[in-house]
Amino acid sequence: MLALGIDPGTAICGYGFVESRGSRLVAHEYGAITTSPKAPMQERLMKIYDGLDGLIKKYQPDAMGVEQLFFNRNVDTAIPVGQARGVILLAAAKNNLRLLERTPLQVKQSVTGYGKATKEQVIYMVTKLLNLPKPPKPDDVADALAVAICTSHMMNSFTFRNNL
Amino acid sequence: MLALGIDPGTAICGYGFVESRGSRLVAHEYGAITTSPKAPMQERLMKIYDGLDGLIKKYQPDAMGVEQLFFNRNVDTAIPVGQARGVILLAAAKNNLRLLERTPLQVKQSVTGYGKATKEQVIYMVTKLLNLPKPPKPDDVADALAVAICTSHMMNSFTFRNNL
Repeated sequence: MLALGIDPGTAICGYGFVESRGSRLVAHEYGAITTSPKAPMQERLMKIYDGLDGLIKKYQPDAMGVEQLFFNRNVDTAIPVGQARGVILLAAAKNNLRLLERTPLQVKQSVTGYGKATKEQVIYMVTKLLNLPKPPKPDDVADALAVAICTSHMMNSFTFRNNL
Repeated sequence: MLALGIDPGTAICGYGFVESRGSRLVAHEYGAITTSPKAPMQERLMKIYDGLDGLIKKYQPDAMGVEQLFFNRNVDTAIPVGQARGVILLAAAKNNLRLLERTPLQVKQSVTGYGKATKEQVIYMVTKLLNLPKPPKPDDVADALAVAICTSHMMNSFTFRNNL
């Protein structure tokens, strides 16, 4: 099964596809959709939506994972991140893609075994678990792959399979 | 010229079309797209997007007005409102619709002549300026019409006409 993990952002929207083959995890395409701060917001959101829509249609993942966002964290960026998240969720809905949401703590727990792991530990474990030649850059891509790994784990759980 | 005003929200997304005929303002269709809190967020966002997309295609407005949101106000709802705002901006971009943004203060100033007007004053003036039979309900619809009136005023300004 193929999981798509997303790290929402207006300037950098990280994405990563992770396939689970038995107990192995294999990374497929991963990267970031980037937009210019000079472009009007609606055009930036359309670039994210169209980019993601194209990736979903091309790779046909079984589910999309996105981190749940908390209101009181990074208050300054809540509206822009919310806007990016809105078009990402819309891309999932328009493609009938199952959406799985987990807290940042659950994602870290799933990837490193420790919910309060540092960013460096997450990047290290993502690189190791997916057997990548080098740590993914920028960090948003590593975060998206971490979400994809967590989503893969959820998809392999009994409940998810029974609900397919 | 026809202006579309939007009051973004996930549960209630107010909209209103206002046409300026010389110095007169005429209300066309206005109302709200509502979604159930029980539905998954991505489906609610799709209902807002599809509803708005249909209205834009039907009435072909010349511009869409949306209030600028401030980060430090209503922190609890920043992410959900941001998400709704994201799909609204996307609907504008997908329909090549010009987007005009104004602060809540500018909208109130434009409708009542006073930037710190109360909600009741705004509803009273919207009803009066558009010659409506009764105050629009819920308040989100009145807010959307206030934004449409402000957008109409902007569209009649020299700068906007010169940039068309």
